[in-house]
Amino acid sequence: MVGARDARTPIMKAVVYKSPCRVEVQDVTDPRLEAPTDVIVKITTSGICGSDLHMYEGRTPSMEGMVLGHENMGVIEEVGTAVVSIKKGDRVVIPFNVSCGFCFNCERGFTNACLTVNPEGYHGGYGYAKMGPFRGGQAEYLRVPYGDFNCLKLPGKPGDGHENDFLLLSDVFPTGYYGTELAGVVPGATVAVFGAGPVGLLAAYSAMLRGAAEVYVIDCVQARLAKASDIGAIPIDFTQGDPVEQIFELRSTTAFVEARRPGEEKMPGVMCGIDAVGYQARDREQPEKERPTQVLEDLIRVVNPTGRIGVVGVYMPSDPGAPSDAAKHGQFQFPLGSLFERELRLSTGQTPVKRFNRFLRDLIIAGRARPSFIISHRLPLAEAPDAYQKFDRRSDGYTKVVLDPQRQAA
Amino acid sequence: MVGARDARTPIMKAVVYKSPCRVEVQDVTDPRLEAPTDVIVKITTSGICGSDLHMYEGRTPSMEGMVLGHENMGVIEEVGTAVVSIKKGDRVVIPFNVSCGFCFNCERGFTNACLTVNPEGYHGGYGYAKMGPFRGGQAEYLRVPYGDFNCLKLPGKPGDGHENDFLLLSDVFPTGYYGTELAGVVPGATVAVFGAGPVGLLAAYSAMLRGAAEVYVIDCVQARLAKASDIGAIPIDFTQGDPVEQIFELRSTTAFVEARRPGEEKMPGVMCGIDAVGYQARDREQPEKERPTQVLEDLIRVVNPTGRIGVVGVYMPSDPGAPSDAAKHGQFQFPLGSLFERELRLSTGQTPVKRFNRFLRDLIIAGRARPSFIISHRLPLAEAPDAYQKFDRRSDGYTKVVLDPQRQAA
Amino acid sequence: MVGARDARTPIMKAVVYKSPCRVEVQDVTDPRLEAPTDVIVKITTSGICGSDLHMYEGRTPSMEGMVLGHENMGVIEEVGTAVVSIKKGDRVVIPFNVSCGFCFNCERGFTNACLTVNPEGYHGGYGYAKMGPFRGGQAEYLRVPYGDFNCLKLPGKPGDGHENDFLLLSDVFPTGYYGTELAGVVPGATVAVFGAGPVGLLAAYSAMLRGAAEVYVIDCVQARLAKASDIGAIPIDFTQGDPVEQIFELRSTTAFVEARRPGEEKMPGVMCGIDAVGYQARDREQPEKERPTQVLEDLIRVVNPTGRIGVVGVYMPSDPGAPSDAAKHGQFQFPLGSLFERELRLSTGQTPVKRFNRFLRDLIIAGRARPSFIISHRLPLAEAPDAYQKFDRRSDGYTKVVLDPQRQAA
Amino acid sequence: MVGARDARTPIMKAVVYKSPCRVEVQDVTDPRLEAPTDVIVKITTSGICGSDLHMYEGRTPSMEGMVLGHENMGVIEEVGTAVVSIKKGDRVVIPFNVSCGFCFNCERGFTNACLTVNPEGYHGGYGYAKMGPFRGGQAEYLRVPYGDFNCLKLPGKPGDGHENDFLLLSDVFPTGYYGTELAGVVPGATVAVFGAGPVGLLAAYSAMLRGAAEVYVIDCVQARLAKASDIGAIPIDFTQGDPVEQIFELRSTTAFVEARRPGEEKMPGVMCGIDAVGYQARDREQPEKERPTQVLEDLIRVVNPTGRIGVVGVYMPSDPGAPSDAAKHGQFQFPLGSLFERELRLSTGQTPVKRFNRFLRDLIIAGRARPSFIISHRLPLAEAPDAYQKFDRRSDGYTKVVLDPQRQAA
Repeated sequence: MVGARDARTPIMKAVVYKSPCRVEVQDVTDPRLEAPTDVIVKITTSGICGSDLHMYEGRTPSMEGMVLGHENMGVIEEVGTAVVSIKKGDRVVIPFNVSCGFCFNCERGFTNACLTVNPEGYHGGYGYAKMGPFRGGQAEYLRVPYGDFNCLKLPGKPGDGHENDFLLLSDVFPTGYYGTELAGVVPGATVAVFGAGPVGLLAAYSAMLRGAAEVYVIDCVQARLAKASDIGAIPIDFTQGDPVEQIFELRSTTAFVEARRPGEEKMPGVMCGIDAVGYQARDREQPEKERPTQVLEDLIRVVNPTGRIGVVGVYMPSDPGAPSDAAKHGQFQFPLGSLFERELRLSTGQTPVKRFNRFLRDLIIAGRARPSFIISHRLPLAEAPDAYQKFDRRSDGYTKVVLDPQRQAA
Repeated sequence: MVGARDARTPIMKAVVYKSPCRVEVQDVTDPRLEAPTDVIVKITTSGICGSDLHMYEGRTPSMEGMVLGHENMGVIEEVGTAVVSIKKGDRVVIPFNVSCGFCFNCERGFTNACLTVNPEGYHGGYGYAKMGPFRGGQAEYLRVPYGDFNCLKLPGKPGDGHENDFLLLSDVFPTGYYGTELAGVVPGATVAVFGAGPVGLLAAYSAMLRGAAEVYVIDCVQARLAKASDIGAIPIDFTQGDPVEQIFELRSTTAFVEARRPGEEKMPGVMCGIDAVGYQARDREQPEKERPTQVLEDLIRVVNPTGRIGVVGVYMPSDPGAPSDAAKHGQFQFPLGSLFERELRLSTGQTPVKRFNRFLRDLIIAGRARPSFIISHRLPLAEAPDAYQKFDRRSDGYTKVVLDPQRQAA
Repeated sequence: MVGARDARTPIMKAVVYKSPCRVEVQDVTDPRLEAPTDVIVKITTSGICGSDLHMYEGRTPSMEGMVLGHENMGVIEEVGTAVVSIKKGDRVVIPFNVSCGFCFNCERGFTNACLTVNPEGYHGGYGYAKMGPFRGGQAEYLRVPYGDFNCLKLPGKPGDGHENDFLLLSDVFPTGYYGTELAGVVPGATVAVFGAGPVGLLAAYSAMLRGAAEVYVIDCVQARLAKASDIGAIPIDFTQGDPVEQIFELRSTTAFVEARRPGEEKMPGVMCGIDAVGYQARDREQPEKERPTQVLEDLIRVVNPTGRIGVVGVYMPSDPGAPSDAAKHGQFQFPLGSLFERELRLSTGQTPVKRFNRFLRDLIIAGRARPSFIISHRLPLAEAPDAYQKFDRRSDGYTKVVLDPQRQAA
Repeated sequence: MVGARDARTPIMKAVVYKSPCRVEVQDVTDPRLEAPTDVIVKITTSGICGSDLHMYEGRTPSMEGMVLGHENMGVIEEVGTAVVSIKKGDRVVIPFNVSCGFCFNCERGFTNACLTVNPEGYHGGYGYAKMGPFRGGQAEYLRVPYGDFNCLKLPGKPGDGHENDFLLLSDVFPTGYYGTELAGVVPGATVAVFGAGPVGLLAAYSAMLRGAAEVYVIDCVQARLAKASDIGAIPIDFTQGDPVEQIFELRSTTAFVEARRPGEEKMPGVMCGIDAVGYQARDREQPEKERPTQVLEDLIRVVNPTGRIGVVGVYMPSDPGAPSDAAKHGQFQFPLGSLFERELRLSTGQTPVKRFNRFLRDLIIAGRARPSFIISHRLPLAEAPDAYQKFDRRSDGYTKVVLDPQRQAA
């Protein structure tokens, strides 16, 4: 019967956005089935994403009272009467995109632009500004619309291991992977990834999984660069000099270049570029200052003619906190002339998680992928306010935090 | 024997660039075979391209003394000793790109970025600034490097008809077609083409050939819009109001939209956008003023989320005549935030003509394509200076001029 | 409320399979909503398909009592409580495949292999042997599972015209189109289509829509070949000699071939081949005899090395009526050595209608496609038994029959 | 000057085919430059390929007197006057396909079907039956036509290491890789490779490089299966039972399957199948008997509906030594009905080596690929007759032999 619930209390704990740089753990009403296609998931892990910090810092339209959290996994608690492929007790991970499965965009595989679920736009997401009326999963329970379409089944049960690996299937692993897809990474490819946060590292990791020959990762934080090195990528510290020149130099002295035929010295860079930073990029010369197009400018220089650039770092059409009037409206000074002369392709957008999550899950199951190397902290829900603050400051090695709503605070 | 020549006189007529807004027909030395892979072509038709006007107006680095002309066809006059697939007397059309066929880019099909032929860059072209030491074909004869690779054989002989159709295989027909390729035009697609010059009209024509359902062509010149209408496209006159709003309005009242399911009203535009204008776009509000990103701004509004934009209009990394300092260096204010939010793909660059010219030739032979509808004038070489001037001013219906070097001036 | 119905009588007329070569129009119970995602459609047109004849002739496992009809369109009569994108009164056309939209195959676009809907296999279809428990639509009403996913909205209302065009979106138009997709038809392509029945003609028509340069259609029935000619294809009558040799001959004398460079005479055939006949092909030498691989043998000869063959004609793994023991088990003598030596690709299978029906609908709406030229008869339901018999014998020009269940027999 | 040579003696050693099961090392004339685009390569390594054994056993048209060897690498000894990208002393590896680079097939990337170089067919190859007038490279020197197009430059010099890895770029590494390309292997894919000879093992290795989740390798030789296991694949010994059932069983008990949603048990096999055996397949029940379609029958069973099969094992249109009359003419009994019902794609043909060799080279240089694990013996030219015999019998672990023409026999 639609709407019926068991003996669970109708009050649960959840992380609620209050105001810029302030979130709280509060009691909120339990989610309920609202349609026959809905399911309710008992959350076992919910991640804090870099893009949650855009909201946290007040860099998006206001969302006071919103329950946060779009990286979610757990166990099915209840299913609507129309749901046929999952049942109570199934372990599932849920894409950050809420999508219907049958609109023009979903049926072409663009679940990142569902036309059905969000009355005010063409994206749906959990606990996110402008992404529709969906509460987030940094909470004990979550309502998931179109459960058959949006839940990816997982083997085992909570505690069987891989919990952290599987959690990353909700967003950052597919998002890093999508960067490699947009950038056209093929076996033998040369790749530059700007940004060694969770998405950048998993983009580099995905490039390795896809058989790239050389993967450069550009950042300025030593711990992140060390992780890039651990997975077989080549770290580039941009505080040591123009990262584009560093890559040119490295490539000109490797055996690879020795193998080139005349003319190929005109292609000193890489064929595939990935922007895993987005609009909050900093000026390399004056790191205290934002320079939103710093990464794209570098990418247009380092990606060889006829190459491709995948942009998975976020750029906003409206950004009240931007450093200039133009940037407040999503307008940026951009080297379009070079983009054209170099015959580049620039592909952007949120990730259609469902296009990739199943295949990436199977790599985790087969033991061929372990994306959880990026996770630094696993904490009870009660510690969320503190974790947000530390993650926002990148203090104490808070590189990626996941919350466990079923665990009591110490 | 390499280098041997018949009784032709070593002096020929050619169109030579002198200074901004001045070209002359002069006597120059005949071209000679310089390598065993070269061929010499007796030119029967050579077009004047919109991009020739960039040079003509002094909007490119100086090229005094250069013989112009990158849209060339004719009859093989002489072949080098290594040439095996064509022989004296063969009728051929030649891509504007000069390419080797064996470098990293050529072998992947990117003949628009040949690494071999141009010592100073990664593009080769005839009679064009920064495209290498290749004389153009607005002349009686032309040397073509790598003749086996660069000549496309044609049926019949000069005068058999189709001369003007086949000439367009050298550049603007494949370039218009490339716009549709970059924009992802498939059967049933909706398409907006900005600019109804030769490339824009042939982009619209190519979209029709590929089975597009609706093709909107945006311009302000009535004669051009009439041609768009003739080929089955829907003309949009931007002097009658914001062209993006006009397209939204037309689509919202057609039967197509009536068929939509809820949510699809969030996609009032088209899926495929083509920029056939480039950096000399004008401000729609103040048409006497250049506004280099006017077309791209409109495209980002009119192309639906998850759509694609193909840019075949030229943007220059260096433009001494640009309206602002930033634009002089190829930097433009650009709505990157919207591009990302709308999950668009932006693909740019010169056209790899060889990827398409053979298939388009076969459509002409089969009687299924007649691109010559865009040609307004066919003139003897001697009239080139006058033709350049009139074409530059778009006066007297000079929409597309081709030169016939074998015809005496009246 | 799920299950509620209006005042319709619970008895309706439907075409029921009785025994080989016998169908009857009978009273059957009305369909009911069985799940919240179901819809009930009042059928305005239902086609008789060539593949219905496989059943009619007893060439499939027995299906006594089955209501036939997988080519269906009509008006929404009732929707389940989970349905959000369509409502009572909407005009819709329904793919012949029944599919869920969320299984591994559906989410990758293979709605032709849905894993959810048919308990006994990986295909779902209406009124078809082994395709699941779904009644067909040669009836007054039809239950459609997963209505949001399976209904394609149409403009207008019954009687507004295009009824016959839109009906063909349920199967044969997308199926013909799928043949061109599998065969890799691109603008400028050369194509050979074997069979000028409804699917073959619409494959040829689709090839033209996609911009093919030359489309050959092979059959022996003059009326069909005349239709091929009407749409711009080149008819080949195989009773006048080996059709492969006929195509070689035609191509060797056209202007196209004149344009070739040395070596290309080794490619006298076409690049794209389509089998629109299937396992009931006849021996060209002895047309009274079945020769199941006749068409594939010819295709392997006529398709040039590196070309592609799309097989949309049906081959059966089990065929009680086959001419040999091997063929009874779907085993056929096959020129695999030539297939390999010629480096061909052979792609097969039922059509995933949803991948194409929306785009093809838009071509009909835009006035760019009129597939109904293949329909010979539109008849009331009562005449179905007679129509089946005549269509099976191809008598009296019965090339394609559609039934109108809302029309009274004369 | 074309044709000039240095002081090398005009006599060299080469492996010459004499009669079935007999090759000899003989003195033959040195190769000479025959065209300005030719180069002469001093061979440092030349492999013996499984397909050489087809000739060795007399299973191809007669080729008495032919110098064998299509897997070749070495150092440039001399270049023709038209050659620009390589020079004397360069280290290179050469694709087995001889191709021109400018015909219709080459320019589309199908160098496996060059129309120019072989007067009698549409394939060119070194030292191979029906592949044109090209001597093989199991010799001290080799003439390579179109040197700019056909030579892939390598770093280092002979003796620098990687000699055996790089040699495999001439054929079997790209061929194994091509199998994965035809089979559609993507990250997370499930793959079955039939045959664990050099091509099969390198197909499995390529599948791993491309990020496959599960790779099954089917053979009956323990040493080969052990190598499959070493590279992370799952060995299946078909002498232990029907390999298809073994794979179904393994997959049904892995965690992967546990993760499935209802319906997915209908897909117990893999999505990608590779035939690395070809027409000399043996009957699994009676291994002493050839059963040319054994592998394809198994593949059609084990590949899930909508999957793809890549055939890189050779099937011959004419095979004098075949076990049946039909097979002598390349005709085989084939489960076409199942192929269609399962909606499979079957892609065949020789490998276009150039499409892949550069990227695979870069993986070797980067230390990410070491294909030489398949090589069992490196021998001087003089031992070729003995090596052929042992390799043909697969005796003494002769799994893959390469010859070193610059090394004296012990």
